[in-house]
Amino acid sequence: MKPARIRLGMVGGGEGAFIGGVHRFAARLDAQYELVAGALSSTADKALRSGQALGLAPERCYDSYESMAVAEAAREDGIEAVAIVTPNHLHAPVATAFLKAGIHVICDKPVTTHSADAKALLALARKKNLVFAVTHNYSAYPMVRMARQMVQSGRLGELRVVQAEYPQDWLAEPLEQGGNKQAAWRTDPAQAGGGAIGDIGSHAWHLADYVTGEPLFQVCAELNSFVPGRAIDDNAQVMLRYANGARGMIWASQVAPGHLNDLRLRVYGSKGGLSWSQEHPNQLRFTPLGQPTQILERAGPGFDAAGARLARIPGGHPEGYLEAFASLYAEIAQHLRAARGGGRKAVKADKASHFPTIADGLRGVQFIEAVQRSSRQGGRWIKLPAAAA
Amino acid sequence: MKPARIRLGMVGGGEGAFIGGVHRFAARLDAQYELVAGALSSTADKALRSGQALGLAPERCYDSYESMAVAEAAREDGIEAVAIVTPNHLHAPVATAFLKAGIHVICDKPVTTHSADAKALLALARKKNLVFAVTHNYSAYPMVRMARQMVQSGRLGELRVVQAEYPQDWLAEPLEQGGNKQAAWRTDPAQAGGGAIGDIGSHAWHLADYVTGEPLFQVCAELNSFVPGRAIDDNAQVMLRYANGARGMIWASQVAPGHLNDLRLRVYGSKGGLSWSQEHPNQLRFTPLGQPTQILERAGPGFDAAGARLARIPGGHPEGYLEAFASLYAEIAQHLRAARGGGRKAVKADKASHFPTIADGLRGVQFIEAVQRSSRQGGRWIKLPAAAA
Amino acid sequence: MKPARIRLGMVGGGEGAFIGGVHRFAARLDAQYELVAGALSSTADKALRSGQALGLAPERCYDSYESMAVAEAAREDGIEAVAIVTPNHLHAPVATAFLKAGIHVICDKPVTTHSADAKALLALARKKNLVFAVTHNYSAYPMVRMARQMVQSGRLGELRVVQAEYPQDWLAEPLEQGGNKQAAWRTDPAQAGGGAIGDIGSHAWHLADYVTGEPLFQVCAELNSFVPGRAIDDNAQVMLRYANGARGMIWASQVAPGHLNDLRLRVYGSKGGLSWSQEHPNQLRFTPLGQPTQILERAGPGFDAAGARLARIPGGHPEGYLEAFASLYAEIAQHLRAARGGGRKAVKADKASHFPTIADGLRGVQFIEAVQRSSRQGGRWIKLPAAAA
Amino acid sequence: MKPARIRLGMVGGGEGAFIGGVHRFAARLDAQYELVAGALSSTADKALRSGQALGLAPERCYDSYESMAVAEAAREDGIEAVAIVTPNHLHAPVATAFLKAGIHVICDKPVTTHSADAKALLALARKKNLVFAVTHNYSAYPMVRMARQMVQSGRLGELRVVQAEYPQDWLAEPLEQGGNKQAAWRTDPAQAGGGAIGDIGSHAWHLADYVTGEPLFQVCAELNSFVPGRAIDDNAQVMLRYANGARGMIWASQVAPGHLNDLRLRVYGSKGGLSWSQEHPNQLRFTPLGQPTQILERAGPGFDAAGARLARIPGGHPEGYLEAFASLYAEIAQHLRAARGGGRKAVKADKASHFPTIADGLRGVQFIEAVQRSSRQGGRWIKLPAAAA
Repeated sequence: MKPARIRLGMVGGGEGAFIGGVHRFAARLDAQYELVAGALSSTADKALRSGQALGLAPERCYDSYESMAVAEAAREDGIEAVAIVTPNHLHAPVATAFLKAGIHVICDKPVTTHSADAKALLALARKKNLVFAVTHNYSAYPMVRMARQMVQSGRLGELRVVQAEYPQDWLAEPLEQGGNKQAAWRTDPAQAGGGAIGDIGSHAWHLADYVTGEPLFQVCAELNSFVPGRAIDDNAQVMLRYANGARGMIWASQVAPGHLNDLRLRVYGSKGGLSWSQEHPNQLRFTPLGQPTQILERAGPGFDAAGARLARIPGGHPEGYLEAFASLYAEIAQHLRAARGGGRKAVKADKASHFPTIADGLRGVQFIEAVQRSSRQGGRWIKLPAAAA
Repeated sequence: MKPARIRLGMVGGGEGAFIGGVHRFAARLDAQYELVAGALSSTADKALRSGQALGLAPERCYDSYESMAVAEAAREDGIEAVAIVTPNHLHAPVATAFLKAGIHVICDKPVTTHSADAKALLALARKKNLVFAVTHNYSAYPMVRMARQMVQSGRLGELRVVQAEYPQDWLAEPLEQGGNKQAAWRTDPAQAGGGAIGDIGSHAWHLADYVTGEPLFQVCAELNSFVPGRAIDDNAQVMLRYANGARGMIWASQVAPGHLNDLRLRVYGSKGGLSWSQEHPNQLRFTPLGQPTQILERAGPGFDAAGARLARIPGGHPEGYLEAFASLYAEIAQHLRAARGGGRKAVKADKASHFPTIADGLRGVQFIEAVQRSSRQGGRWIKLPAAAA
Repeated sequence: MKPARIRLGMVGGGEGAFIGGVHRFAARLDAQYELVAGALSSTADKALRSGQALGLAPERCYDSYESMAVAEAAREDGIEAVAIVTPNHLHAPVATAFLKAGIHVICDKPVTTHSADAKALLALARKKNLVFAVTHNYSAYPMVRMARQMVQSGRLGELRVVQAEYPQDWLAEPLEQGGNKQAAWRTDPAQAGGGAIGDIGSHAWHLADYVTGEPLFQVCAELNSFVPGRAIDDNAQVMLRYANGARGMIWASQVAPGHLNDLRLRVYGSKGGLSWSQEHPNQLRFTPLGQPTQILERAGPGFDAAGARLARIPGGHPEGYLEAFASLYAEIAQHLRAARGGGRKAVKADKASHFPTIADGLRGVQFIEAVQRSSRQGGRWIKLPAAAA
Repeated sequence: MKPARIRLGMVGGGEGAFIGGVHRFAARLDAQYELVAGALSSTADKALRSGQALGLAPERCYDSYESMAVAEAAREDGIEAVAIVTPNHLHAPVATAFLKAGIHVICDKPVTTHSADAKALLALARKKNLVFAVTHNYSAYPMVRMARQMVQSGRLGELRVVQAEYPQDWLAEPLEQGGNKQAAWRTDPAQAGGGAIGDIGSHAWHLADYVTGEPLFQVCAELNSFVPGRAIDDNAQVMLRYANGARGMIWASQVAPGHLNDLRLRVYGSKGGLSWSQEHPNQLRFTPLGQPTQILERAGPGFDAAGARLARIPGGHPEGYLEAFASLYAEIAQHLRAARGGGRKAVKADKASHFPTIADGLRGVQFIEAVQRSSRQGGRWIKLPAAAA
């Protein structure tokens, strides 16, 4: 028999939002979740209208996340997990409310705008023994999984150089001054926490972190704002020192004409190199030192188990952004189901099933803060905090 | 309020099948359908097990499509449409049964193994006033829509040359002799109707047909079977003459090492050319004669309304095969809903919402048959039947 | 000591010509030739001016190829070889004159406009024991050499499918009606012999012929002229049957917007496939069946001796069209030097040093004629003559 | 009449060298130079053998650059210019000797291993009124010229971000410990002056400098040596601050598996972005902000005069590394000829004809030194000296 779907709520993501819709596609694709409640907007009208358009019962269309957390916790059929897709500065209070209500959290990134908040969330989630997933979604592309597995299994040898970048061009002009809501909150330091470095630099950081598995030791950075009147960085340059001696660079930009969401990662070791691009995610280029470069295809020859677990369709039929996001949701679902019956240990032991958690989210915020500090101090090398035990 | 989902049934697509799962993803992604019944296998055990794994009620897990058609037609909450994902030779009897029961049909391609059957289905669907969609799915990629729109609006000028191809390599060895079920029925003339030309050549044909909108006049073809012991073509070459004087070529192969599902279309007119590749579907290359080639991106600069209607997420975040398939289902859903209330005329008038129907399916089978005839006759130019009025 | 350079003459290639300049670059690059005489134009003034601009002595600037052949043959320091770069219809009379004068010939392609002339030239060159090279220049790209070697050594297994194409767009409009001299003679049947099929289809044919080494058995073709008022084909489609059972297609077009000189070859066998593109000639894609595609780089890992013999600089530093053309000239030079001392047997035994000869040129003209015949006969399969013994 | 070729000498570049051969190809391709003398090796035997293999008269095969400078200056037919292709540390003494002898200099890069030497050479060349060219060869690719012209003419708007990189993989293992001569001197600080930053980082720097025309203000850098036992950097990271407020990054690496000579430049301004790659040099990608990316082809639509001046053959026929190098030599030749007749002013006024000089070479060495200083000081931002007046 098919197990019951996970009852999911959502905070944020009402009419006109972007990432809320993505989370809903992701939850739906593999039929593991049912969206049953939401605080999609803090305006009552809009919250109801947005909720009903998604098929929610009127009484479960909340206009306050606080009341939603309380009400849902009280229902027998209340939500088991909440997806938080608000602007960044709200992540912490919303997550806190749901964790306190005993509800698992799936939160967008960066997980908070201050690392102290992320630390508190980490402690709270542990105390309550709840799942806290952070949607660093690029880690769930099959070829990213394969890349990580290749590094882990030593096919690249000892890690030497990491080059990550995430250029965009949508903020090359001052959209935030013309009524674009996405642009407005993402360029507001209070709501966003960081500009290019927070919105997309954090993705580049996580991708490198996830694939290499190597602790980052220090950063030396330069943040700039090119668009006149902009209050936040729209171009970020970072040099990286890894604990093992490897070196790297991250470039994140929102003012680079010709790039849409051009996240790329290149990793080089003593025995080989690999390269991956989000805009063409079904291929991974791999060069064993001294041999020709190979184009590895998702579900093609040489595709490995780490990637295969996430591939839905045959090679040559492209999977994309929504599928990767859905894979993250599917792996979270596996853990949420296990939590139902208290069987989380068994799931945790399945190391192939994993997703970024609040611990990763915390490190991401610490990375952003270290970059900001280095830039403020004129390019000093800043040490990252040791990872939480 | 959100309208009720369309109640969908499925014939074929049990454990181990490929395309059935794709149809289910497609139906689910946009939350327009609910799968409620199935004859997923003709073996009772397997039918029940497959159905329950998908959450079907046991009494709606049928082991015979005939009984399913009768039983579902009799239920108040019976299915409104059936997705047919069996081997090709069963499409006609299954579709006939459901049409007779008053149920709309969504059928995989080629729609039949003989054009006479397709003609009969066309007549029956018209008589019963039912929707009959054929899943030539590549036509629902956003950039394919945009390509079609560009041709229609004259940006390429007068059509001159069409180059379509669909190479694969999965049948380069005799898999059908080793127990691979997919390979077995797809290389069996009785079940498949055609080999490379039927399975993938028909996709290349439809893509060219859809984008150019130009009637095909004659074909001159050569079918071959390279793998020893194979009873059906695994490589197809076709030269095309269009009614307006344009010329073209189609190459479909299942024995071309290095190609997975490498469907490509290039169209050239007196004013410009364009090129699209399924394995990288979010880009469309366009060259206005005498100007540099442009890379048009889904949801990027210059993206048009025809494509935009099908794009779910921002440019640079790749959409893939499942999204395109889901878009086809979503457009079919729009028509099925309209059929509920008798409002189909209004929907038909919305020319931007469309999908391949049994009329296209019939022409596809006629194309396959003309190619087969030309090849048998040693490369004579064979005229295609006039399109059904 | 460095041996004396080969004394070279040229017929055609005066001011405003294209291919003459290419031959001169090619002769110069490896410092094997010295251009010392020319009939660069049939207009005395222009012949003198063009010759002197190239540093020729005035008395060796001829305005007639006949007088040049006679005069040069009479000089002690007369030319050893002549490069013929006139419009196609003059190749035969010019070559005949120089062969009769005992001078080796390097001739552009197609070698003649009628196969009977090519046959006569073959016989004459043999009788006179002279070198007769035909500049099917694409065969001298290092990666093309490597491709040929890979086929010969069995890395692709048994040959199955060949896809060759050469699209351009420069004749998409009637340039020949506007005073463009290149366009004028190339679209004049009397001077050119063939349109797209002769000018570039013959290159695609030779590339396939050279790399596969497989005799072509039959062709089925369709020639068309799309530009109003054009007297010659500007689009050619050809289906190929090889003697061993392989099949193929050639497409050559001068009306395909977006293509400059986009010659491509793909070859598939039972064990692997490869792909090469002239516009990016330093890479060769190779897929061993069941393994990832490899990108082989000129002078990179896995580069073989057949290619290495022609590579001048390290991998990653691109070599191009002129280098390949120069390599052809360098290999011809090796044979010309050997002819000086009567040591041609030793050179012939060095099978790695080779170039297309009049025998290949003859087969090229026969290919063009067979295609033209097939097209005239409405797409009949036409058998090619057996290769000259 | 064709003017007499420029009499060229060469120091360095004997048997087994790489760049000497490249300079000879470059000098030969456009028939502007004649190599007539050389000190190709400091070993008499080898100097004679190498020289004679190149057709030099025995008495002009020197084994000492000092005696060559003196002897050639004394000959009526002595060399007019010398090409210096020795290891870097010899550039300064060799160039000094020839400048003192009144002979123009064409010198490889980096022009010296210490900026003080470069300054002295600049002063000496000016005093003697001699041409001193430095072969930052990538600046002579036609599409690089076009890129520069596009920036200068404002098509990118105000410069914002510059991303340059030059990864290789040939030193990923300790070749210098195994007898590879190229590796040996290039990894010896005394002979090379710098490792990755000097050998290839300087190319990346110059390319960015040349295309943007924007003065570099400060650098912040990190040099590393990954291969055990290596005495010099094999990976270089640099952050850039431009005088106008633009920012940039340079990455140069010799330990990045999968890269041969993968020099790339991306430049972004307020109105557009462009991208160029040395391994595919005939294309330039250009994105006007808010419009689709265009692929500009050498000698294709939109190709401009700045590039056209250097293009030899039609678009789609690739030109490569040697052609670009030859173009540099050709432009130098134009100035050398002008110097013959004292007409240098007229040539200088032709701003389209230009090449990197000792002034650029000096700035290149200053860049290297600033990077080295920044790295030694743990990543301080180091100011570059003001350009020489």
